Amino acid sequence: MYQSTITITLRPSILDVQGKAVELGIHTLGMKEVENVRIGKSIQMTVNAPSEDEAKRITEEACKKLLANSVMEDFSYTIKSV
Amino acid sequence: MYQSTITITLRPSILDVQGKAVELGIHTLGMKEVENVRIGKSIQMTVNAPSEDEAKRITEEACKKLLANSVMEDFSYTIKSV
Repeated sequence: MYQSTITITLRPSILDVQGKAVELGIHTLGMKEVENVRIGKSIQMTVNAPSEDEAKRITEEACKKLLANSVMEDFSYTIKSV
Repeated sequence: MYQSTITITLRPSILDVQGKAVELGIHTLGMKEVENVRIGKSIQMTVNAPSEDEAKRITEEACKKLLANSVMEDFSYTIKSV
């Protein structure tokens, strides 16, 4: 059994309005040192696969088919045995 | 200058309805091996701090005051010099 941790981020060229709003909020709280806030998703899931390669294949298929929008988002993942 | 990467996850005892919906979607696509999908946020930001300790302090303050809901969510972060 494997634990996949997927991070999905907006591509750098895409304007992150949610990030801009959060950045403004952080500045309003007095933390002017913070810049370039970008917000993405972090997805954890368990994959019942017989091997790490198979767990990778399933994770990648889930990202491509459902979790990430390949036009606007990039994804990366790590897999560990549990 | 430091790059903070923050991961915010729902506490394990909190029902993740968004995760359940995504899990159903993944199963509908035929990937029955996937279980326990939980969805959190991943936040990247640049911190203009003179030292790593100061960058940590600012990141933690932003998490506690704004980014994470301490009743329902846990946060973790990594900091690297850029």
